[in-house]
Amino acid sequence: MARADELSITPQSQDFSAWYNEIVQKAELADRGPVRGTMVIRPYGYRIWELLQHELDSRIKATGHENAYFPLFIPEEYLKREAEHVEGFSPELAVVTHAGGKQLEEPLVVRPTSETVIGEMMANWIESHRDLPLKLNQWANVVRWEMRPRLFLRTTEFLWQEGHTAHATEEDAKEEVATALNFYREIADDVALLSPVLGEKTPGERFAGALNTYSLEAMMRDGKALQAATSHYLGTNFAQAFNITYQSGEGDLQYCHTTSWGMSTRLIGAVIMAHGDDKGLILPPKLAPYQTVIVPIAKGPETSEIKKLADQFAVDMERMGIRTHIDDRAYLSPGFKFNAWEQKGVPLRCEFGERDISKGVVTLHNRLTSEKQLVAIDKLSETVQTELRQFERDLFERAKEFRLANTRYASSKEEFFEQIQSGFVVAEHCGTKECEDLVKETSSATPRCIPFDAKPTNGACVICGKVSPYGKRIIFAKAY
Amino acid sequence: MARADELSITPQSQDFSAWYNEIVQKAELADRGPVRGTMVIRPYGYRIWELLQHELDSRIKATGHENAYFPLFIPEEYLKREAEHVEGFSPELAVVTHAGGKQLEEPLVVRPTSETVIGEMMANWIESHRDLPLKLNQWANVVRWEMRPRLFLRTTEFLWQEGHTAHATEEDAKEEVATALNFYREIADDVALLSPVLGEKTPGERFAGALNTYSLEAMMRDGKALQAATSHYLGTNFAQAFNITYQSGEGDLQYCHTTSWGMSTRLIGAVIMAHGDDKGLILPPKLAPYQTVIVPIAKGPETSEIKKLADQFAVDMERMGIRTHIDDRAYLSPGFKFNAWEQKGVPLRCEFGERDISKGVVTLHNRLTSEKQLVAIDKLSETVQTELRQFERDLFERAKEFRLANTRYASSKEEFFEQIQSGFVVAEHCGTKECEDLVKETSSATPRCIPFDAKPTNGACVICGKVSPYGKRIIFAKAY
Repeated sequence: MARADELSITPQSQDFSAWYNEIVQKAELADRGPVRGTMVIRPYGYRIWELLQHELDSRIKATGHENAYFPLFIPEEYLKREAEHVEGFSPELAVVTHAGGKQLEEPLVVRPTSETVIGEMMANWIESHRDLPLKLNQWANVVRWEMRPRLFLRTTEFLWQEGHTAHATEEDAKEEVATALNFYREIADDVALLSPVLGEKTPGERFAGALNTYSLEAMMRDGKALQAATSHYLGTNFAQAFNITYQSGEGDLQYCHTTSWGMSTRLIGAVIMAHGDDKGLILPPKLAPYQTVIVPIAKGPETSEIKKLADQFAVDMERMGIRTHIDDRAYLSPGFKFNAWEQKGVPLRCEFGERDISKGVVTLHNRLTSEKQLVAIDKLSETVQTELRQFERDLFERAKEFRLANTRYASSKEEFFEQIQSGFVVAEHCGTKECEDLVKETSSATPRCIPFDAKPTNGACVICGKVSPYGKRIIFAKAY
Repeated sequence: MARADELSITPQSQDFSAWYNEIVQKAELADRGPVRGTMVIRPYGYRIWELLQHELDSRIKATGHENAYFPLFIPEEYLKREAEHVEGFSPELAVVTHAGGKQLEEPLVVRPTSETVIGEMMANWIESHRDLPLKLNQWANVVRWEMRPRLFLRTTEFLWQEGHTAHATEEDAKEEVATALNFYREIADDVALLSPVLGEKTPGERFAGALNTYSLEAMMRDGKALQAATSHYLGTNFAQAFNITYQSGEGDLQYCHTTSWGMSTRLIGAVIMAHGDDKGLILPPKLAPYQTVIVPIAKGPETSEIKKLADQFAVDMERMGIRTHIDDRAYLSPGFKFNAWEQKGVPLRCEFGERDISKGVVTLHNRLTSEKQLVAIDKLSETVQTELRQFERDLFERAKEFRLANTRYASSKEEFFEQIQSGFVVAEHCGTKECEDLVKETSSATPRCIPFDAKPTNGACVICGKVSPYGKRIIFAKAY
């Protein structure tokens, strides 16, 4: 790493997809694995995942869920017990047929999701209403064979958490689905700064086996949607398939109502595409491996003194909970380091220059605004802290404004197909599969969600003119 | 859960193996998964794993390693590149032959360990001596097909961390191997309180592909050994197989020296068998999901007051960093709760009885010593804190004394085969495969390690009389 052109990437406006592929590799977030479609998450990318895990795991635990771990291998027969479920996942399965040097009697599926195996275990554990609710979560890898893999967005193996809960009543289960959606909203808004739209999926877009699916739909800088997380009410579908029953207070046997919900390494893809620009990544402070980088700029006799000062501030800031890195690589120029850390999306850069420091100041650079300010050296740590909070507000507002500016109402079929080329389109829709398919074939767009916060309307479908069953406008967009 | 006999388990002295299987399930640590040999780690067991992860991960990071994630699936061909490696792992592999509805052109191996795929990626990433050392770690699941599976000890899938590092020189790599051993020693001694023996493995017991393997050997309550962690110096074996090279300061191309090291969910098996007794688990405080359980004992009008007091103390203790649980299940008797939490190994129990509290005291019960003491209520939190520290010292000393009391020197072949029935036997050994195999066939014992701290000797092999190449006595034992 030394020549400036090593950092050059295709501009977003020229080719967003090329920009994405290049930044993922240049910022050392991830690499392609040896097997097609697999991903290696490199330390810089994995640290983002760890920070996300920490934020999400603490919310999962605070709402009374416990972590557990279920097996990677599932008997093939399990998936077949829930008709929609097997139909949805069959094309994506990886299958183990040999193990321990022998052919297996029954092929094993590598989990694409764990409703089935967890359902089987829940059936063993739950006896009485006293065992409910049972609220479990696991952090795990899952495998879904992808035809058009892309790092973080669609990989044959990805990391996620999957929550699985069982309840006595529909009401309890639906409250759980909302609880999960709520901590996902917190993560998306307060941590990843994505400002997504929350809503329910249309019937055609539901999870295979769910009665209701809810999602968070974030907008990327190219105007496409990305589903940031989902939460499903499964009714008694899996309870019936796996015999998850409980004895009620009155002594009769009832089926449990179950839920599942998940967020994955895809979210890193969302963070890249919702915030990045032509210079590279822009990381939300709560997910930034380094929130500030100190670059000492000195050649002469002052070098060791400036280095000492940088060390002091790094210790200071770490103590304040600010993740700080000193880039003291002697074989790289300050300018190269500036560009490299901008590409890696570090929110704030502190330049410790000889001349500045002799005047009692350092230069603080903001990755989002590109503004530089001189900060009195005895105010540095607190200024960094304040600026990080401002950075969060600004980045969130930028995402929100961008989404609003690129969300349009389509009042006619012509308008719809014109607008759907980029951004979110809100429109009345009839909800039939034929009409959804028509939209998809014509424009590759899909219904993203029926937004919670949309106002009641009673218009007719923008495509076919039939009455809309949703009572409100829904969102369509091209999606990742 | 209500009848006392639900808690009954086979005594250790009667059948240690039955005791183990029963306690794992009764204490709700783990369950068998639907596929033979797989394991479901239940919340109580998984929490132990999380606490262990936290302790180990912080030490791994503090010594300059970064976490990353590598793919589950490895091309079958990769394993064949290192001759010893493929020989060692072939019999245990699970193989994916179909995916996405098609037969794969090349079968994929589900990782049994990741030297090969990480080696391939390191070769891409490392160019110059400036890229070294490269110190990576991953937390992951691995699959090794087991013929005689046992929960935590041998399961077809288990969780672990695997460290993988590349260095410029043998010296640097060997220092790394020692660093890893050192944090494993800290975990084993200070966290899991196992007091294991550290040493090098004999050539026949090395990791497949390693030049040196070091391990920690803990003693279980039945006198058998359990390998708690290993650290390997791989020389340039994998560097040659995967072409992991670097350009030195002088400009020539050199092979890297690599290491790997791991600790797994097996350690939970070690904790169960090193500390447990006929009543059930005894958990080291740093790994106990709950370090103290409060059982309110009240029926009459005082109930709500006692409950309030318990809540207060729980908040107090949590604030002091003591993991506390209040068992206020109304449908269970205090006696049943006492037994249930003793079985689950909670170090200290606080009994909040009506009569005691009216006298300003509560009863504190110690799981290890079975002693009860009355504690003035205003001294409770600090007493619990002090008692937990003492509990740690006592549990460690107990493990250490048990190991020393069950470690014997064998000066003759007869003595050796008599003593090897239980405990560690230290003896001179010739180090040949034939002689190791003879010991194994005759007694099922294996050489566990050449202990670091053994004094120099120059005796002859206790079995065959040939000269010992180790210059010190080595440890044999039956092992898990």
